[in-house]
Amino acid sequence: MPEFSRLTQDIGYTFRHARLLSLALTHPSFGAQNNQRLEFLGDSVLELCMSHHLFLTYPKMKEGKLTALRASLVCEDTLYRIAERLRLGDYIRMLPPLQPDTRGRKALMADAVEAVLAAVYLDGGLEAAHEMVERLWAAEFAADREAGNGKSKLQEFVQARHLPELRYDTVGEEGPAHQRRFTVAVYLEDRELGRAEGNSKKDAQQKAAEIALNALKEQEGDA
Amino acid sequence: MPEFSRLTQDIGYTFRHARLLSLALTHPSFGAQNNQRLEFLGDSVLELCMSHHLFLTYPKMKEGKLTALRASLVCEDTLYRIAERLRLGDYIRMLPPLQPDTRGRKALMADAVEAVLAAVYLDGGLEAAHEMVERLWAAEFAADREAGNGKSKLQEFVQARHLPELRYDTVGEEGPAHQRRFTVAVYLEDRELGRAEGNSKKDAQQKAAEIALNALKEQEGDA
Repeated sequence: MPEFSRLTQDIGYTFRHARLLSLALTHPSFGAQNNQRLEFLGDSVLELCMSHHLFLTYPKMKEGKLTALRASLVCEDTLYRIAERLRLGDYIRMLPPLQPDTRGRKALMADAVEAVLAAVYLDGGLEAAHEMVERLWAAEFAADREAGNGKSKLQEFVQARHLPELRYDTVGEEGPAHQRRFTVAVYLEDRELGRAEGNSKKDAQQKAAEIALNALKEQEGDA
Repeated sequence: MPEFSRLTQDIGYTFRHARLLSLALTHPSFGAQNNQRLEFLGDSVLELCMSHHLFLTYPKMKEGKLTALRASLVCEDTLYRIAERLRLGDYIRMLPPLQPDTRGRKALMADAVEAVLAAVYLDGGLEAAHEMVERLWAAEFAADREAGNGKSKLQEFVQARHLPELRYDTVGEEGPAHQRRFTVAVYLEDRELGRAEGNSKKDAQQKAAEIALNALKEQEGDA
């Protein structure tokens, strides 16, 4: 197992009690002292950090949309992506050792992210945990703002022209769980305005919205 | 509406920004500025306070049991009981005003508890919110420890005698949602050792465990 120094640098937090970090990276197969209780706590730490982040970032967003957005940010897919980015697998203690094809790899990597977050919370408090979330989720937060922009620009265009309501449909999903591809189409009533692929539904929606907006503008130019 | 002073005394927290408390007690029917976003945040604040409380209180409990225990402590029934204890209905602003038979009363009272908790969190930080939870849930926490005691005493008795595993079954549920009664029976293989009624499954299990333990002890005395 490599030294923790690369990991603590990547998560942006240095532990007073390094044992907590080590526990957070111990799978139940390794022994009775493992990360499952930390994962229980970390799940709640993550939820609160995310809720607070969204509450502040989107001061006018309704609770239904906030809830949906939070769900996409704390889902197993997102946690797994973050775990892979941190190369957390290099540090996880389990028996037999973790392999690229270990059964349940995705879930246990996602659990480890939550457990590490709980370790930071216990060691340094909520603020330290919140900072870790802001750092590790920076790419996801940027994509959300971006997606919000694309979709809301299309929405504004449609509303300004009193057109009917937009509808986004996920029309395709393929590939293994850790590199799933989604295809989303956007419709104005029965008419398809555009479709696009992406690594997440949100990403695909964003791209589909951009294509749709260009198509509508072009059409308007032709008219 | 009565003054907030009784309420702030009951929740044990005085607001720097009283507007937050007032917002937390404003139902969506009252206007666009309402407690729904606070409820979104408060749900997560409550989860974390509860997770942390349980993590510390039960240092050996496995995550599955912790999760179940947390679910029972943050469910709508429990939140509603706490809201009624605080007489939160006296403060909720809605149109038409809240009545004992208002449709959805239970859910909106439960939401208000979460919104108030978010208000405390935003005004005073996590520690203030945590203190409020410890105060408002004191009776529930005591009942849990109690129930844990009854059930674990029975468990110890059974284990010491190498008897088969205990099983608790909810064999009955009746009454309206806000005063539901549960009947739980405890079995040793196919043999019923005792059954009891209670306001919650946990409560009924606790009572059934006590009855079962007494029955087993009596039987041992007779042998």
